[in-house]
Amino acid sequence: MQFLVRVSPRCLILQSEVQSFVERCMVAVGTKPSHASSLAEVLVDGDRRGHYSHGLNRMDMYVKDIQTGICAKDGEPSIVKESAATALVNGNNLLGPVVGNFCMDLAIKKAKEAGIGWVVAHGSNHFGIAGYYSMQALKENMIGMSYTNTSPLVVPTRARECTLGTNPISVAAPAADGDSFVLDMATSAVALGKVELHHRRGDIIPEGWGCDSQGKLSTDPGKVLSGGGLVPIGGCEATGGYKGFGLGLMVEVFCGILAGSQYSRHIRTWKVTDRVADLGQCFVAINPENFAPGFNDRMSDLLNLHRDLQPAEHGQPVLAPGDPERMSIQRCDELGGIPYHLSVVQHMNKFAKSIGVHPLLPSDRPVPE
Amino acid sequence: MQFLVRVSPRCLILQSEVQSFVERCMVAVGTKPSHASSLAEVLVDGDRRGHYSHGLNRMDMYVKDIQTGICAKDGEPSIVKESAATALVNGNNLLGPVVGNFCMDLAIKKAKEAGIGWVVAHGSNHFGIAGYYSMQALKENMIGMSYTNTSPLVVPTRARECTLGTNPISVAAPAADGDSFVLDMATSAVALGKVELHHRRGDIIPEGWGCDSQGKLSTDPGKVLSGGGLVPIGGCEATGGYKGFGLGLMVEVFCGILAGSQYSRHIRTWKVTDRVADLGQCFVAINPENFAPGFNDRMSDLLNLHRDLQPAEHGQPVLAPGDPERMSIQRCDELGGIPYHLSVVQHMNKFAKSIGVHPLLPSDRPVPE
Repeated sequence: MQFLVRVSPRCLILQSEVQSFVERCMVAVGTKPSHASSLAEVLVDGDRRGHYSHGLNRMDMYVKDIQTGICAKDGEPSIVKESAATALVNGNNLLGPVVGNFCMDLAIKKAKEAGIGWVVAHGSNHFGIAGYYSMQALKENMIGMSYTNTSPLVVPTRARECTLGTNPISVAAPAADGDSFVLDMATSAVALGKVELHHRRGDIIPEGWGCDSQGKLSTDPGKVLSGGGLVPIGGCEATGGYKGFGLGLMVEVFCGILAGSQYSRHIRTWKVTDRVADLGQCFVAINPENFAPGFNDRMSDLLNLHRDLQPAEHGQPVLAPGDPERMSIQRCDELGGIPYHLSVVQHMNKFAKSIGVHPLLPSDRPVPE
Repeated sequence: MQFLVRVSPRCLILQSEVQSFVERCMVAVGTKPSHASSLAEVLVDGDRRGHYSHGLNRMDMYVKDIQTGICAKDGEPSIVKESAATALVNGNNLLGPVVGNFCMDLAIKKAKEAGIGWVVAHGSNHFGIAGYYSMQALKENMIGMSYTNTSPLVVPTRARECTLGTNPISVAAPAADGDSFVLDMATSAVALGKVELHHRRGDIIPEGWGCDSQGKLSTDPGKVLSGGGLVPIGGCEATGGYKGFGLGLMVEVFCGILAGSQYSRHIRTWKVTDRVADLGQCFVAINPENFAPGFNDRMSDLLNLHRDLQPAEHGQPVLAPGDPERMSIQRCDELGGIPYHLSVVQHMNKFAKSIGVHPLLPSDRPVPE
């Protein structure tokens, strides 16, 4: 294939082709087509936003979840209990994006009528980037929030054992003229993928990312990955790690504890799919129209006054939450596709072949180095 | 006075005497008695919980705010706009605790009917510890949240200028048998008071607490205090400081931006009361009864499974958010009063004399070293 003989280690793939490829793979193993589309949209969005660890890279995990039957391939989420402003949803063990879209749509609908919608789900699965759901609210000029619990990877302050997931928080808020604030962050200091990357390269990691099996901060990624774990935002106790730990627990309060799903140490081990995930998730929409007039303009001022600050280092501008992702999307749009490492494409196509699916086709446009 | 000749540098004061002393001082300068009581309760609670920087220590600031007329001594907050689940409140420039209590009561009332109450206020002032308000929801077996913006003290990631306050987040959630989760944290790595304390002692501070006037992390508290600033949780960019920065902005979205109050750099300088504060605050109550049954038991399990973890260091048990404060309260109860440094009592009594108020009287019980 032509792309294998390129000099560049990367190639460009049309967004529509990535979307279609994920759909092809998911449908091939029996996923309901609309569910396959929902998942594909979240994964494509992850990659376009530059969060490759939450995009195409993870597709085989979702395919396997459907193949093994550990995740439901058909059905719809159901509302267990609701009021004008709240709902408890059973995700019925469907793909995370199916549950997430259902809940976020419901939260937005409630916020239109009641000013706020607070929806929690049990019986869910991995839903991709949290920001995908919070950002749905932007389309209705609302604040959106999404939270999920996840398999234990984080060691609490003072402990030596993983009991919390990377439990992300996402909050999106609309500014004027299509601008927005998009916070989308794990409550661990970094993502596991960053530690894995340093390990593969043989690099040490900064102090404050992870700890060894004795709960001591370590700069050796090998120790973090074998028996240790990530640490909460803030690093050690002296630098405020207990705050990150508290935020990770807060996410559990909103997700597993409110929803009645699995939580904390009771969630299955990361990448071990011996039983259903039964994740807890939380989705919120808030209508600024129920509060003070002028929300979007104040939001724009808040973002721009930060972007316009004099940077500490020349060439390193102050960025508002969501700006790095906006730059990544802009680059994809300019290139006319999403850049991927060839190794990812090769891996995907080997996988596609194993399930009898037409391969992912790179475009013939070059990726500038 | 007898307490001045003690050998111990600390003395014990009955909670009722601290409450009464704050009320006396505030009423002496014209504060409406019920408002003085509300403030006194929050300050006493701050001290009992061990957050001395947000208790009696700060009383003179509130007295001066009333004396100078920069904060209103009479009136009540008013509801500007409301729905079943939301409200916008005008704090009418009253003392922060008066606004906070009004809003939190309203949020709880709404949560009883609508499952959730999301109330924001403009025209408010410093309200003491954020946890005081979130914890009001515990009395009704609900989740409570409170947020406030504050005067700029925090330098955003990559910047060299303070544009955000320490913008605290508090979330409280009820467990079984009176136990609870109480997160009450600034979104800066540490409180300003901790840096000041190190400076007075001539100690260096850990890397990741503050930066100098060029935006570089510094271990010199003097540089942080003169021209530099606190940094967000997470410290520098490599260790996730941008997440703490994002959380500080999130608090602004919920407070100043939703409420239409002052926000970010537009808030008056810390301790400069040349104009009204017009702070923005946010208060939320969520009724677990609208979600999955068994909330309190799951909450207890989540707390206890963490408390029971094997600690990394012997004698340093894993603590749930709220546990350090619970221990402080227990100590006060055992001692039969709140321990204060004599210098604080001396300062307070000098101040009391200047406004013609009967002095703060220590009890004659000893404070064990």
